[in-house]
Amino acid sequence: MRFKLTLEYDGAPFFGWQRLSEGPSVQGALEEAMFKLTGAHCDVVGAGRTDSGVHALGQVAHVDIDRPWSPDRVRDAINAHVRPHSIAVLKAEQAAEDFHARFDAVRRIYRYRVIDRRAPLALDRGRAWRVPRKLDIPAMQEAAERLIGQHDFTTFRDTRCRAKNPVRTLERCEILRAGEDIHFWCEARAFLHRQVRSMVGTLIEVGYGKLSARDVEAALKAADRTRCGPVAPADGLCLMRVDY
Amino acid sequence: MRFKLTLEYDGAPFFGWQRLSEGPSVQGALEEAMFKLTGAHCDVVGAGRTDSGVHALGQVAHVDIDRPWSPDRVRDAINAHVRPHSIAVLKAEQAAEDFHARFDAVRRIYRYRVIDRRAPLALDRGRAWRVPRKLDIPAMQEAAERLIGQHDFTTFRDTRCRAKNPVRTLERCEILRAGEDIHFWCEARAFLHRQVRSMVGTLIEVGYGKLSARDVEAALKAADRTRCGPVAPADGLCLMRVDY
Repeated sequence: MRFKLTLEYDGAPFFGWQRLSEGPSVQGALEEAMFKLTGAHCDVVGAGRTDSGVHALGQVAHVDIDRPWSPDRVRDAINAHVRPHSIAVLKAEQAAEDFHARFDAVRRIYRYRVIDRRAPLALDRGRAWRVPRKLDIPAMQEAAERLIGQHDFTTFRDTRCRAKNPVRTLERCEILRAGEDIHFWCEARAFLHRQVRSMVGTLIEVGYGKLSARDVEAALKAADRTRCGPVAPADGLCLMRVDY
Repeated sequence: MRFKLTLEYDGAPFFGWQRLSEGPSVQGALEEAMFKLTGAHCDVVGAGRTDSGVHALGQVAHVDIDRPWSPDRVRDAINAHVRPHSIAVLKAEQAAEDFHARFDAVRRIYRYRVIDRRAPLALDRGRAWRVPRKLDIPAMQEAAERLIGQHDFTTFRDTRCRAKNPVRTLERCEILRAGEDIHFWCEARAFLHRQVRSMVGTLIEVGYGKLSARDVEAALKAADRTRCGPVAPADGLCLMRVDY
């Protein structure tokens, strides 16, 4: 039986979603919990291969379990076995046998959190990017609008990105401020490797007055990685939702 | 020169605000930073002696610094020296020579965060209290209203509380739900030791249907510690603001 899992995790202790030889991963921790639970190896396939340190409040994965268990029992059993890792199954649902968390996703929604203040972060350390100067939000919003739509996002993808096609359609790139808390909402069917953090890092340069909206548009059109601003740290990024 | 400091901290690594021999404290970490900064011992006097594990987004303290420094320099210098502790000075302001962070406070505002869901906390671990069943918020709100006003709060104070007078005036005790996130807002000139956590723990019993609003009122009137519900854990409590 195939189950769709909705997951929350604190990405700080992990080398990212994907199972790796170098260190702990979210996928590895979940597969270990599945092994304790079923005595067999199960692949846990995620919708988004979040990077090292990136968080999730709504990652989605699928897994096959050959037991006559209710979805709630699956949720509780994985949660019991994945301890003490900072991972939680929020919801388990029975899915079609051919449901695929990664290939069937039609939209990924990420939020990037920036806090613009002089003081370092204490309670939100590791959960946001602190920038020490006040940001020009209207200028950033103008620049963000230039990124929306279908483009070759080569400028905003990591050089190690293995996607064959650098064209993506950015459906939403919105910046909302609430006090010193600034949220970037980015939505697309799919993203390139480090695309959100590359875009956020570049938009912060606009907020500092170092780049204009026109510069960002020109950088996008150049399809040239060297035109990207500094990549924003993983701390502020969170996979909020995956739509099917 | 006396400075008023507004502080944020993650309380998890500390044995509470107050300097102690047994372990790390917020006050101790700040006084150590002041020593590195000035070469002399300085008392850092806080408005609220938050307990072990309790957080702050708006604790206030005062400190005397005999240097001709601007408030911004004081803020940045303490932040530089208090690292790597999870403490940040959000604001430093010059204060009157007789300003006293503790005795001059006219209102303390605490927020207690509960999340009611089956899944354990991952991203908010240590920052909220997870209760695994859906809570009856209207019943809790009705009970919370019975606590507002001037009362002998003996039922809701720790047996180790050293205040001579158990009478306090609770100005606000409001419960707000946003999805699975439930916030208790408690305001008073002063609180007894563990008063907020004792009240929250008892109100949760109401949310479970184990106690009624009338039971809570009777427990309050009894002025009997044994009538208090289980004390809520420190994780969810945060000192939000102190008014003068």
